[in-house]
Amino acid sequence: MPETLTLYTASVCPYAQRVELALSEAKAPFTRFEVDLQNKPEWYAPKVNPASKVPAIAYGGPQVPPDQPSPESTKIAESLVLLEFVADLYPDSGLLPKDPVLRAKARFFIDAVSNKFNPAFFKFVFRGEGTLDEFVAAIKEIQALLPAEGYVIGPFSIADLALIPFWGRGLVAFENDLGGFAVGEGPKYLEAIKKNPELTRFLKYVDDVTSRPSFKATFVPEVIKARFKERFRSGKA
Amino acid sequence: MPETLTLYTASVCPYAQRVELALSEAKAPFTRFEVDLQNKPEWYAPKVNPASKVPAIAYGGPQVPPDQPSPESTKIAESLVLLEFVADLYPDSGLLPKDPVLRAKARFFIDAVSNKFNPAFFKFVFRGEGTLDEFVAAIKEIQALLPAEGYVIGPFSIADLALIPFWGRGLVAFENDLGGFAVGEGPKYLEAIKKNPELTRFLKYVDDVTSRPSFKATFVPEVIKARFKERFRSGKA
Repeated sequence: MPETLTLYTASVCPYAQRVELALSEAKAPFTRFEVDLQNKPEWYAPKVNPASKVPAIAYGGPQVPPDQPSPESTKIAESLVLLEFVADLYPDSGLLPKDPVLRAKARFFIDAVSNKFNPAFFKFVFRGEGTLDEFVAAIKEIQALLPAEGYVIGPFSIADLALIPFWGRGLVAFENDLGGFAVGEGPKYLEAIKKNPELTRFLKYVDDVTSRPSFKATFVPEVIKARFKERFRSGKA
Repeated sequence: MPETLTLYTASVCPYAQRVELALSEAKAPFTRFEVDLQNKPEWYAPKVNPASKVPAIAYGGPQVPPDQPSPESTKIAESLVLLEFVADLYPDSGLLPKDPVLRAKARFFIDAVSNKFNPAFFKFVFRGEGTLDEFVAAIKEIQALLPAEGYVIGPFSIADLALIPFWGRGLVAFENDLGGFAVGEGPKYLEAIKKNPELTRFLKYVDDVTSRPSFKATFVPEVIKARFKERFRSGKA
């Protein structure tokens, strides 16, 4: 039986949402602590995560208020490490099946998200660099790893949690015209992506994942939108 | 019982050595195929790894000669995916213990190798950029994750396979003065590192890992040296 678990998270952060999704899918009991990333509590880095980032988990030790972390709990950071951790804590959740080949396929997909999709995503959506065609090419690399239907490895798994928080933030950026791109371009980019007949499979996939209760329960678009407004459009006309 | 396993590898490649080490530690039977990275067989990308890199594993399917890969085997790539795969195939090898917290600690260390040590290693040793102090700082970040003695998580694990092939290549580069750095600097850098009293724990750790039979059986310094000579000093005075 898993021990006490506190998640240090922030609704705005895609890495943190990965872990919230995993805990939601595993139906894990946990204490949620929202870290204000613009104004982090002074105890957070010394007592929870020296890198001062979310997500982080405090696992085990005595029941304590989340803002008074116990030195007796184990602190674990890095979103992909935490996805595996939740899957290990809840082996019956199906977040990672027992078959070594399926596990390898899930991890290969996650690697592609880290090394192919995300660099393209940050470049195009957040930094406003490169072209839509380059971003679409990265989406196609991910799409090529998807089966004809269903989730990445068939059953739903941690592989399906790696990309979707970033995609969700891309939707907020495009829909609200709040990104690194020029004012007015966001909605046009989104329309071009949604109407691209070569992306049908990818669009169905992300729709499948975002339709799950775990996504709806952990995705807070108003918070993301407010943050993007500050980040991308404050002080602009 | 695991099925037939063919490893596509190259003695020169640190990523490939990670997987050779894991198979050696697990005492796994497998077929080894050396890929000539300067002159890859034309069947390699289409039949084994579309990214045309080593390491890759062909798992399952009929017994076939490694240069005639069967479409019925599963092909898996990416060294860190393969470390987990070998640990999953051989749960009794101890390459990853069952305890979720220890597994998370192993993965956190591997993440630090990927995102902290390796970028500094490539920059300083292979590209000859930055300073020795910067490289030493990256070594210290890794050292800070080591326990007072023994291996990364206590028992030997895949965490101990992530860094060591790169360190081994660093030794070859420094000792033979074959790197991105200026001619004559290699041996001096190595001496400075070995005599640095702040790196004692790290140096003991890498000595512990390189002393294991698995390292001795999979590390081929003459091949690495010959390749580094071509890469770093061909055409130079």
